Amino acid sequence: MIGACAGAPVAAPAHAPMDGFAVHADCLQIGGMDLTMLAERVGRTPFYAYERASIRRRVAALRAALPAGLRLHYAMKANPMPALLALMADLVDGIDVASGGELQGALDTTISPSRISFAGPGKSDPELRRAVAAGVLVNVESGQELERVALAGERLGRTPRVALRVNPDFELKHAGMKMGGGARQFGTDAEAVPELLRRAGQLGLDFEGLHIFSGAQNLSAAALAEAQEKSVRLALRLARAAPSPLRTLNIGGGFGVPYFPGERALELGALGASLQAAQALLEWESPQTELVVELGRFLVAEAGLYVCRVLERKSSRGKVFLITDGGLHHHLAASGNFGQVIRKNYPVAIGNKMRGDARERVSVVGPLCTPLDLLADNLEMARAEAGDLVVVFQSGAYGLSASPTAFLGHPAPPEVLV
Amino acid sequence: MIGACAGAPVAAPAHAPMDGFAVHADCLQIGGMDLTMLAERVGRTPFYAYERASIRRRVAALRAALPAGLRLHYAMKANPMPALLALMADLVDGIDVASGGELQGALDTTISPSRISFAGPGKSDPELRRAVAAGVLVNVESGQELERVALAGERLGRTPRVALRVNPDFELKHAGMKMGGGARQFGTDAEAVPELLRRAGQLGLDFEGLHIFSGAQNLSAAALAEAQEKSVRLALRLARAAPSPLRTLNIGGGFGVPYFPGERALELGALGASLQAAQALLEWESPQTELVVELGRFLVAEAGLYVCRVLERKSSRGKVFLITDGGLHHHLAASGNFGQVIRKNYPVAIGNKMRGDARERVSVVGPLCTPLDLLADNLEMARAEAGDLVVVFQSGAYGLSASPTAFLGHPAPPEVLV
Repeated sequence: MIGACAGAPVAAPAHAPMDGFAVHADCLQIGGMDLTMLAERVGRTPFYAYERASIRRRVAALRAALPAGLRLHYAMKANPMPALLALMADLVDGIDVASGGELQGALDTTISPSRISFAGPGKSDPELRRAVAAGVLVNVESGQELERVALAGERLGRTPRVALRVNPDFELKHAGMKMGGGARQFGTDAEAVPELLRRAGQLGLDFEGLHIFSGAQNLSAAALAEAQEKSVRLALRLARAAPSPLRTLNIGGGFGVPYFPGERALELGALGASLQAAQALLEWESPQTELVVELGRFLVAEAGLYVCRVLERKSSRGKVFLITDGGLHHHLAASGNFGQVIRKNYPVAIGNKMRGDARERVSVVGPLCTPLDLLADNLEMARAEAGDLVVVFQSGAYGLSASPTAFLGHPAPPEVLV
Repeated sequence: MIGACAGAPVAAPAHAPMDGFAVHADCLQIGGMDLTMLAERVGRTPFYAYERASIRRRVAALRAALPAGLRLHYAMKANPMPALLALMADLVDGIDVASGGELQGALDTTISPSRISFAGPGKSDPELRRAVAAGVLVNVESGQELERVALAGERLGRTPRVALRVNPDFELKHAGMKMGGGARQFGTDAEAVPELLRRAGQLGLDFEGLHIFSGAQNLSAAALAEAQEKSVRLALRLARAAPSPLRTLNIGGGFGVPYFPGERALELGALGASLQAAQALLEWESPQTELVVELGRFLVAEAGLYVCRVLERKSSRGKVFLITDGGLHHHLAASGNFGQVIRKNYPVAIGNKMRGDARERVSVVGPLCTPLDLLADNLEMARAEAGDLVVVFQSGAYGLSASPTAFLGHPAPPEVLV
């Protein structure tokens, strides 16, 4: 013993187990087939694969845990792939869009426009006009936008459906990304909302309710519960100034998924209990108001893999690099360049050698001429050779659509839903 | 006086002056016209604008400062816009490409394939085949790639033109991004190069020379000078094992441009002097070797603007936000999400009110539903209203092509060369 600092060795934090996909004969299974067979079916690497069964399972488990009557929306910004969106339209109660382009995608599904909502701090006049023409709910983010949407309605001879997005007077603790509290570009400060509610009444808009979204990618059920309760209390307070009773209250979501070593999945039981409490609170004072949670990442992230192929195994001064045909141009978040301050590894494995005969620590890089093109840094995985398939787990949300696909002129990867 | 720490107030670091574009009647000029008129000509915002005259001026100034006989290449990864690339093909002595897609772009210009080179750590077999078929120089990055390119040549019945890319045994100091020294995915470790040179001879390849690239975005002329000298000395040492005398030595570039407060532009005089010394050293021992510098960002970054329009001016709890139609989906680097650890502001101004009647500190954000969508954080500029044009300077390199344009479904911005 050398002093107070000595002690038992502390294990390095590990990734949460990636057990959403089966493994047969050491090969990852997706959509009921070997990953290697899927790669042949796609015909080239890299690609993204999303699994229908995983998404269905996740939605079913969530529905089972959530209180009856709670409405579940999909925030399509997480993954706008058309086939996946068509699946979601069958599974959820509404779709939230964030642009005119996303609106078009949602309208192309079987979902009714009455169940589409449009949020975003910088909606253009043409976008507002499209939303009113389509009859979707506009989550209005400012007093100016309220006037603009009213004008669009006047010109089109159709009453806009609106909810007000509130910048709350509290912050979501432990959020990967805070979207409310303090000074924000999102929504209207809570203290200014009563004036806007009165104005919405004067303008004769079809007022539906409130939208309060405090943050994203949160792995603390307690922090989420606290924000849910505060959101409901804030909404009930603000409702007193509303031109008509709240028909809906959208409290966002913010449910996170574990990406990095040491992070653990949220327990559905805890989420269900806190939403039950939030719903009971709302029902007590405002029985006509439907509670909505809006989830993107939480519904689809774990159902998706990014798959690329090892081109070369390279040793440089004692370090092994797997050089692949995939990289940051396809998966910016996994490279650590999307909202992360300190780069950490996503869960990454060799899909056709999940366990492997030998294990080693390697770095997985892409074909780009930049050291930023890094999919795994000094991570333990099976020993791989040229031709093997590297998989990046947790890649079903904010993957391809959040990546600079044109960077360095490589082809964009296909996406498949299996 | 309170103690040793007291003293005159220290001014906060400022951006380098953005004086590459004239200002008339408080409006920024580009391509000989008011920015407001260009916006009308383009027909919509946001857009990228690159100025021909600025690029010509930069290349001419650089040519005047650099030693005669030095060859200047353009690394098209910095900006692959076809019209700009056609301009560069007229101005420089060679184009460096980093993928099969970029190769196609370069071959579409008037430049001869003999003056195109192809570098990148993860070239696929089809890409190597395309390069050999086109007759361009392949900068080979590993022993495996050397074998693969030889095989491609054998199958096509054409001798591949190759240079070896070296991972040097030194690092470029003060580089924004290190690409050499230590363990790297780029090139072949210097100590393993002699063996590869012998192998290139055995394989009967057309050996042209060496490529040594130690880093990028460097604003220290002294550090660049040191790396240039070390690169030449390393090349001369390695040349002893070469199958034939070096015809070319490409020492990369790494010349930076000032983006952030406190950064200052490189002096061309200092760069010219150090390259003169490097060339003299090379000529003394290896008179037949042409020295090549390969620049991307340094040639085009300062000639480009990203232009977006203020949609709303929004106050939230004492802070002013300019909400624009542009954002991180078009300009990831300016949002601080491309290789930066601590976010800093690019130089940003109101293009139609360069000085303005009043000044204020504001944050400039985009339309996306994420706090990452930030183009300027608490930066002083002219007081702006809806309709005004926000310009982000230093946007001619690693702008649009390095951005996730599909994110949230907004249309991609046009690019114009004026």
